[in-house]
Amino acid sequence: MQLPLLTEARASLTAQVSAINEFGEHTSASIPAERALTIYVDKKELVTLMTLGAWPEWLVLGYLRNQRLVDSVQEIESITVDWDVGVAAVKTRHGIAQYEEKTAKRVVTTGCGQGSMFGDLMASIESIHLPGTTLTQAQLYAIVSAIRLKESTYKSAGSVHGCALFAQDELLLFVEDVGRHNAIDTIAGWMWLQGSSQVQAEGKVFYTTGRLTSEMVIKSAQMGVAVVVSRSGITQMGHQLAQQLGLCTIGRATNKRFLCYSAPERLQMQPALAGNPQPP
Amino acid sequence: MQLPLLTEARASLTAQVSAINEFGEHTSASIPAERALTIYVDKKELVTLMTLGAWPEWLVLGYLRNQRLVDSVQEIESITVDWDVGVAAVKTRHGIAQYEEKTAKRVVTTGCGQGSMFGDLMASIESIHLPGTTLTQAQLYAIVSAIRLKESTYKSAGSVHGCALFAQDELLLFVEDVGRHNAIDTIAGWMWLQGSSQVQAEGKVFYTTGRLTSEMVIKSAQMGVAVVVSRSGITQMGHQLAQQLGLCTIGRATNKRFLCYSAPERLQMQPALAGNPQPP
Repeated sequence: MQLPLLTEARASLTAQVSAINEFGEHTSASIPAERALTIYVDKKELVTLMTLGAWPEWLVLGYLRNQRLVDSVQEIESITVDWDVGVAAVKTRHGIAQYEEKTAKRVVTTGCGQGSMFGDLMASIESIHLPGTTLTQAQLYAIVSAIRLKESTYKSAGSVHGCALFAQDELLLFVEDVGRHNAIDTIAGWMWLQGSSQVQAEGKVFYTTGRLTSEMVIKSAQMGVAVVVSRSGITQMGHQLAQQLGLCTIGRATNKRFLCYSAPERLQMQPALAGNPQPP
Repeated sequence: MQLPLLTEARASLTAQVSAINEFGEHTSASIPAERALTIYVDKKELVTLMTLGAWPEWLVLGYLRNQRLVDSVQEIESITVDWDVGVAAVKTRHGIAQYEEKTAKRVVTTGCGQGSMFGDLMASIESIHLPGTTLTQAQLYAIVSAIRLKESTYKSAGSVHGCALFAQDELLLFVEDVGRHNAIDTIAGWMWLQGSSQVQAEGKVFYTTGRLTSEMVIKSAQMGVAVVVSRSGITQMGHQLAQQLGLCTIGRATNKRFLCYSAPERLQMQPALAGNPQPP
């Protein structure tokens, strides 16, 4: 497989600023970076993303994939990111078919949503068939623990979302961003580079600190990931779509607690691991 | 002033779903609604917003304002929302000038960002002059307390963002949505209906449960609100813009704690109210 050439543009993820606390004391605070990255595809301006900027090339790749602008990673010749000007230049091998058409329809998604989703993502749901991924309660607990240890920028600067990809309970990739849609797109881009056949999506579990909205569920399904874990809750449309897709959503996952909202057949319960139920 | 005619479309804000908890018990969970609202302006499709749907007419109004598609509330004749079909039909009095041009440029903002922002919002910063709003530490504490009492959908269903508008420490409007950009747009729409002169923005304080990103700072400034309070942190670009605008940003505001990141001259410190500093 001919992979695209990617730069490895790096930039500082946090900045120190001075602040005044409740005692009137001058103090120093670490805050996350937020920078504009304008994507050009074959010299045409596509979109500007506001991002922390940890892995901009994977972000751009995942963005193009999740927006369904490009069908195969091999269609992309190179992605060149230059933080000095805040530009990601994408060069395709043969141009993007129906570019105008694909970028015409706009959906502003919920909350920490992608923002604009091109094309009719919702209509594509019926063509998605998820792999037979299952997870044990012990593996779920291992995932929650792994995340607790991992959050780095969040710990130092706060205000970022974390997303992670697991193979069962093995952590493959952890990404933080000021927007969780960026974090999930970055993971999608990374997966795409590894080759994203159903075989490789089998056993994959996606973790997000953010809410399980319609968009998060759709993007996970597009990546072929059949189990999604969140420390937060789920929205009604996220729930409906997950049920439709047979995608297992697990929310409110902190310490030993969680709620499985959909496709519980994918979660092998081991209630003894939860300790004793609290008295009602 | 001739105000637009607005429907009062209401819909259920939460839904009950069944879930399985960590003990393998079947339980019931309350989750927030998330529904698609497609905005048509003079019969032309503009955008689809995913929203909780509490005050859809104000949301549409604020969206049009914050995207700078409409300059005056009087340009809008009516907004008709019909939840059965998920449509908001906007009728303008004389059409929107330079409609194509204004909807051409797209910025996907950070995190819980607006998603797509039309026009060059960033360029408009220099024309903004904020009123001389100040806030005392006692008023700040009153705001944090008021919010703690208020959060309703969040308490029952979680997974929503809350935003509120205060006149000093008097709560004027509290809005929850699955997307905080929707919550802030709803407040902008409400303010617009009240008349949004500088006089009326004087003394206004904006509260958000979400992060102080570039977008939140810009939108507050566009509303003429010079003090913004959050329980979360601030991003680097949010910080830069706030400094540039002289907009007071106060983050990490929980109980008695907070950090003032910018324009501290707007915050009248009363450190005695914070209690005793913790030992280092």
